[in-house]
Amino acid sequence: MQRVPARIGDPLAAVETPALVVDLDAFEHNLDLMANAVRGSGLALRPHAKSHKCPDIAKAQVARGAVGICCQKVDEAAAFVAAGIANVLVTNEIVAPAKIARLAALARSATIGVLVDDMRVIADLSAAASLAGGTLHVYVEIDVGAHRCGVASGEAAVPLARAIAAAPGLAFRGLHAYHGAAQHLRRPEQRLEAIAAASRQAADTKAAIERAGVACPVVTGAGTGTWQLERDSRIYTELQPGSYVFMDADYLRNALSPDQHHFEHSLYVLATVMSTPTPERAIVDAGLKALAFDSGPPLVHVARGLEYVKASDEHGVLEVDPKRAQPALGDRVWLIPGHCDPTVNLYDWIVGMRGERVECVWPVAARGALG
Amino acid sequence: MQRVPARIGDPLAAVETPALVVDLDAFEHNLDLMANAVRGSGLALRPHAKSHKCPDIAKAQVARGAVGICCQKVDEAAAFVAAGIANVLVTNEIVAPAKIARLAALARSATIGVLVDDMRVIADLSAAASLAGGTLHVYVEIDVGAHRCGVASGEAAVPLARAIAAAPGLAFRGLHAYHGAAQHLRRPEQRLEAIAAASRQAADTKAAIERAGVACPVVTGAGTGTWQLERDSRIYTELQPGSYVFMDADYLRNALSPDQHHFEHSLYVLATVMSTPTPERAIVDAGLKALAFDSGPPLVHVARGLEYVKASDEHGVLEVDPKRAQPALGDRVWLIPGHCDPTVNLYDWIVGMRGERVECVWPVAARGALG
Repeated sequence: MQRVPARIGDPLAAVETPALVVDLDAFEHNLDLMANAVRGSGLALRPHAKSHKCPDIAKAQVARGAVGICCQKVDEAAAFVAAGIANVLVTNEIVAPAKIARLAALARSATIGVLVDDMRVIADLSAAASLAGGTLHVYVEIDVGAHRCGVASGEAAVPLARAIAAAPGLAFRGLHAYHGAAQHLRRPEQRLEAIAAASRQAADTKAAIERAGVACPVVTGAGTGTWQLERDSRIYTELQPGSYVFMDADYLRNALSPDQHHFEHSLYVLATVMSTPTPERAIVDAGLKALAFDSGPPLVHVARGLEYVKASDEHGVLEVDPKRAQPALGDRVWLIPGHCDPTVNLYDWIVGMRGERVECVWPVAARGALG
Repeated sequence: MQRVPARIGDPLAAVETPALVVDLDAFEHNLDLMANAVRGSGLALRPHAKSHKCPDIAKAQVARGAVGICCQKVDEAAAFVAAGIANVLVTNEIVAPAKIARLAALARSATIGVLVDDMRVIADLSAAASLAGGTLHVYVEIDVGAHRCGVASGEAAVPLARAIAAAPGLAFRGLHAYHGAAQHLRRPEQRLEAIAAASRQAADTKAAIERAGVACPVVTGAGTGTWQLERDSRIYTELQPGSYVFMDADYLRNALSPDQHHFEHSLYVLATVMSTPTPERAIVDAGLKALAFDSGPPLVHVARGLEYVKASDEHGVLEVDPKRAQPALGDRVWLIPGHCDPTVNLYDWIVGMRGERVECVWPVAARGALG
């Protein structure tokens, strides 16, 4: 683990850069808004922890009523279980025997779920769970439009559900129906249409499984871009949004519908101006190793005529509006990452700021958990 | 630090994925080729360790004659000094007082260099070096075409050189003249022209500084795309290539001149097929958190009709050529990263393979060293 970039009680000026900083007021607003919007709906909230990889944040979500969390990797799940999170759904297919064994071992001390989209894995999961002496909760993943993993909706899921229900050590829980591609559709009507179709597919599949005599209590899915649609779908029973705790520049590009809740940016990369070689250029100390660029460059927070135009490994080039003053050497710049999840994964620590003071420093315990 | 993905002596099948794997035969070929091509030239080889962040690799470079290494961050330098590397040049401007203090402390036990492009930093560096009781080697960075940090070439560097030479605790060593933008110019003649211009600028600047009565023994720079040009420039005295140890998909896009040495790909992300939902699609377990995408998606090594077409956080979508067999669940896929440096920074371990066996597992000790 790398050096802690700040200490509790530090003023902003003492935070070493580049640092991953959370504005706690905005962050808590986001947590409360989601918790309140799901509470009373009859649906479970199971936020995705791949966005934050941070047990302190998972605990804050559970404290507000989340039933547990989602992870994508077995080693992520292990980090959260070790930190006391008692209910983790790995929203992914796990096929390697060593990983299946670790997953099954976790199920001795926590409620652990996992996805399946291939008949050949069920026997391995069952054997591992039986050997470990626990029960794995298993969900069939159906492809509702993301075109990634998952079997086709409808009848294709039935043999899988049956096999899981019959397998020792496994409990069939229901369907994983996450439409990742819908999250970043820019217009509300596009997202509405996508989730309406996903909901129909999930409903058809649930009906087919139940016609086969297998109970299918859970339909889980949804993300930050669409969760209100799944909540109101009458078929989803559990919501998995992750990015809402932080938001990012890419989610800012989604047009919101009038009734859609607004989450605030709470996540920043705090950078420092390390060179001002010409009046139209300032260089900051945050580049490709401090920010993810898959969704474009970061936005510069608080308009001051600066645009982040180019990154190299450890440098960011800011273009300075000629009508504005150039930042000075040593000035701090707040950057809104293009994509929060892979940006968070670059850091060992999240610095929580309340106004101008450091209130907490949280380990990103599952940072780099690839296995 | 995350779980070690393999143990020494393991067969390939036991390596957990995604894993960062180095083909040791290709890697050693690259190290030897560079060492031999610089040896006898009169120039020093100071490879850039930002590419590998790994003390074991730095030691292999020094064992082959490198005078030391380059780093970009103070905490990177600290990791290498702690591992026994005695000579580190931080090829970057360091302006934060806490970082300057740490850098100066390192200079008590190692030869430490740093760049300056702003008069205001020199007093801070001098005070910190004096307080620590060491000497910092200081280089003036000139902008020879990268348009990032650095003062203009020529007379602008003279006052900086003078001030450094006169400052207690500092030793003026020369010029940093790295043309980053030239490394990825695709045609040999473009690179030739760029480095010819950079060399003229470096020569003019050195002459101006020496006319002012300040010795300027070192001109340091160059990267994997152009180092033969700087080597033969008659003005550069030290070469800083980094990526040559690994190579990547982006360097593969450079056309080579007939006399240009060929480095082999030695770095791979080993991934596993975790889902085969349709005949034309296979999903691997390496996405945005296992590969850097700033230079595009990875190439699939050994053509077998697979193309990596889309990434999400923890998934990669491979398109399968309909005329070829679909890979099977659990199959291994070797991916050549688009850009090696930020990809390496995602991993805690490098797995060194000799043929089909794990020969070594090296910690990426400076992974995430942002400060």
